[in-house]
Amino acid sequence: MPQTRGHVLIGQAGGPTAVINQSLVGVIETALDHRSVGGVIGSLHGIQGVLKGELVDLSKERRKTLESVARTPGSALRSVRKKPTQDECQQILNRLKQLDVRWFFYIGGNDSAETALLLSTMAADARQDLVVMHVPKTIDNDLMVTDHCPGYPSAARFVALAHLGDDMDSRSLLGVKVNVLMGRHAGWLTASSALARVREDDGPHLIYCPEQEFSMDAFCADVDRVMQRLGRCVVAVSEGIHDKAGNLIGASGERDSHGNQQLSGSGHLGDLLVAALKSKLGSKLRARADTLGYLQRSFAGVVSEVDAKEARKAGRFAAAKALAGAGSHSVSIVRKPKKHYRADFRLSALEKVAKDQRRMDPAFLRGTNDVSPEFVEWLRPLVGKLPRMGHLAEVRYEVHG
Amino acid sequence: MPQTRGHVLIGQAGGPTAVINQSLVGVIETALDHRSVGGVIGSLHGIQGVLKGELVDLSKERRKTLESVARTPGSALRSVRKKPTQDECQQILNRLKQLDVRWFFYIGGNDSAETALLLSTMAADARQDLVVMHVPKTIDNDLMVTDHCPGYPSAARFVALAHLGDDMDSRSLLGVKVNVLMGRHAGWLTASSALARVREDDGPHLIYCPEQEFSMDAFCADVDRVMQRLGRCVVAVSEGIHDKAGNLIGASGERDSHGNQQLSGSGHLGDLLVAALKSKLGSKLRARADTLGYLQRSFAGVVSEVDAKEARKAGRFAAAKALAGAGSHSVSIVRKPKKHYRADFRLSALEKVAKDQRRMDPAFLRGTNDVSPEFVEWLRPLVGKLPRMGHLAEVRYEVHG
Repeated sequence: MPQTRGHVLIGQAGGPTAVINQSLVGVIETALDHRSVGGVIGSLHGIQGVLKGELVDLSKERRKTLESVARTPGSALRSVRKKPTQDECQQILNRLKQLDVRWFFYIGGNDSAETALLLSTMAADARQDLVVMHVPKTIDNDLMVTDHCPGYPSAARFVALAHLGDDMDSRSLLGVKVNVLMGRHAGWLTASSALARVREDDGPHLIYCPEQEFSMDAFCADVDRVMQRLGRCVVAVSEGIHDKAGNLIGASGERDSHGNQQLSGSGHLGDLLVAALKSKLGSKLRARADTLGYLQRSFAGVVSEVDAKEARKAGRFAAAKALAGAGSHSVSIVRKPKKHYRADFRLSALEKVAKDQRRMDPAFLRGTNDVSPEFVEWLRPLVGKLPRMGHLAEVRYEVHG
Repeated sequence: MPQTRGHVLIGQAGGPTAVINQSLVGVIETALDHRSVGGVIGSLHGIQGVLKGELVDLSKERRKTLESVARTPGSALRSVRKKPTQDECQQILNRLKQLDVRWFFYIGGNDSAETALLLSTMAADARQDLVVMHVPKTIDNDLMVTDHCPGYPSAARFVALAHLGDDMDSRSLLGVKVNVLMGRHAGWLTASSALARVREDDGPHLIYCPEQEFSMDAFCADVDRVMQRLGRCVVAVSEGIHDKAGNLIGASGERDSHGNQQLSGSGHLGDLLVAALKSKLGSKLRARADTLGYLQRSFAGVVSEVDAKEARKAGRFAAAKALAGAGSHSVSIVRKPKKHYRADFRLSALEKVAKDQRRMDPAFLRGTNDVSPEFVEWLRPLVGKLPRMGHLAEVRYEVHG
C-alpha cells in the first residue's frame, strides 16, 4: 500500500435538498478511489460532528448503498445550522489535525461557505496542512458566482409540477388561488412557477418576487384584472415579499435578537393576501391559499435529472481538484454559450461565495408582477421535460334537428 | 345509420382528483362506440352547464386529445359545488328531455350521488326516460359501499411520497414536524402517510385521524415520548381532529349559517399544535408545521397506476351497464379475496352511496395515535411501488494508529 497523505472528512449543512446526497457520494467515491487518501470520514450534523466526536467511517459503506443514498432526499450525514465561533473553529482545526484530516469538504449554502472560509483562513495562518472545499447546495439558488446552484433545479421542478396541477384545479372551480413559495431574499424558486405556463391562459397569472416592490393595492388591482379576463387567477408569491420601505408583508411585527423581522404562522402570508382580496374584491370571492413549505426541498420522487447529474459532478469535481493540489475554494457551475444546454465546473474563491446572496437578475423580472421570457428560457433546460396537460377542444354543442 | 335511442350527457362535480378525467374518458369512449348513442354532450361545471346551456360536443374531440386529458389532473369539464333545488332539478330534467338525453353520467362524490338520486327519482316519478349514473371520485375515500374510491390512491401516493421525503428531512435537522392533511370527516388520506414507514424508526411516528378522539395533553405526551427516543418526531394529522365533545381542534370558534364549525386560517391547526408543543416541551424545541393543501388532489405527475386504470374502468363500466339497460346506480369497487390485489366493479343503489360518509374501519386504527398493519396492507397495492430511501450504515469511525 502506497503512503497516503491524510484523510478526507465530509459534512453537510443547512437545509437539505433533493440532490445534496449526490454531491456527498460524488466526493466519497472520488476520495475512495484516490491513492493519496487514507480514510474517508463522515461528520454527523456538519461541523458539530467534529466538535462532538460523532464521526462515521464512509469507507465501510457499500457502493450499492451509496448509489441508493445518492438518490435519496435529505442530508444523509445529517445537517446543522451553526455558525462556529473563533474558539470552536480552533477546536475543529485541532481535532482535524489529530485525525490527520487534510481535506475537508463542506456541502452547503453561503453560511457553509463562510464557515469554510473561516476555517481555511485560520488553517493557513497557522500553517496547518488543510484544504477546505465548499460544495454548493441550496434550493433558494442564492449563491454568488455560479450560473445556478445544485438543488435548485429539483425544487424548481417541484414548484412547476405543483403549478401545472394547480392551474388545472383552478380551471375546475375558478376563483383565486395564492401559492406561497420559499425564498425569503431571492425569488428564484417563486419564479420557477412560470414553467407551468404553456397556453396563453395558463397560470400562474401573477408572480411576485422579493426583488420586486410589493403593494397590496397594486396586488388587488392585478388580481381583479386577471379575474375580469379569465374568471380565475393563480398567484405565485414569495414568502419574502415586502413593501417599498422593506417591511415584510408577512411579518408578525416582531423582530428577533439580530433585528430580523419574524414571519408569523405557517399560513399567515397566504391568509393575509386572501383577506385583502376579499376585502377589496368582495367577500363572496372564492379565494384559497396554500403555503408549499418543506415539500419544496424534500418531496421524494421529484428530481431534475440534470440537477442530479450536476450535483454528483460538483462533488466529484471538488474532490478531484482538492486531491490534485488545489487550495480551498468553492465550486461554481458555468453555462456554456451553446444552443443546447451544457455546463462546466470551475473553482471560485470562497470570499466571493461566502458573503452576499444572489438575487434575481433584473433582466429575469418583468414589471412588478411577472418574470421575463429570458428567465424561463434560462431555467427550462435545468428542470427537464414536464408533463403536458391535456385540454378539451370544447366545441360548443349545437342542438340538431 | 341505425336508429339511435338518444344522447349521453356527462358532468363532473366537487373537488377534482388526479384521475377524475380517466373516468370521464372511460364514459366518453364507451358512449362514442355504442350504436344506441346519438351524441355525447359535456356539461361544463356539472349540472350548472345544463341550467345555463353551457354544453360541449364531446364527439368532436380527437381520441389523442382524450388520452391526454385522461392523464391530466383537474376536472376537464370543469366542476361545481352545487346542490340543486327541487325547482332546478325540474329545469334540468326538462332541458335533458329537450336535448333528447337518455343517459346522464355524473362523476363526483357523495353530494353528486345525492344529486343523481334526486334527479333519477324525479325522472322515474314523471316517467321520463332517463338513467342517471353516478361515477365515484374523491381523494377523501369517504364513499359508502365501495372498497375504495377512484382518486384516493393517487392522493395517498402524494401523501406517502411527501412523508418519505419529509422523514429524511427530519433526520437531517431533527425536532418535530407536523403535517396537516386533508379529510375533515375521515382519516383515510392522513392514514396513508403510514406507507412512508419502512424502517423501525421511520416517520410518521404519530398519526391522528378524525375517527380518533384527540386530546392536546395526550398529543404533547405522545410527541415527548417519541422525542425522548429518537430526537425527532414526524406527525401526520387530519384537518378534522376533534376533542371528546366533537369540537374541531382547528376551529376558529365561528360557525357558518348551517351551524358547521369554521376552520380558520390555512396554517392555523399546524401552528396551534406547534405552539402547544413549545408551551409544554419548551420554547427552544425546533418544531415546524406544513399544511399540504390542494397539492394533495392536483399535483401533476404523481398518479397511482392502479388508480388511473380503475378510474378509467369505473367510467367504462358505468357507461357499458347503462347502455346495456341498467337503471340509475352508482359504481362500486369490490376487492377480490385473492393473494394478489384484484378488483371488480359492481353497480350499487344510489341510496346507499348518497347519504353517509364512510369513516375508517375501526380495525384500521390503532389506539389514539396510529393506524394498524391491516390498514397498511389494505392500502399498499392501491398506491403502487414507492421509491426506496437510502440510509448510510453509519459505522462509527475508529481512530487508527
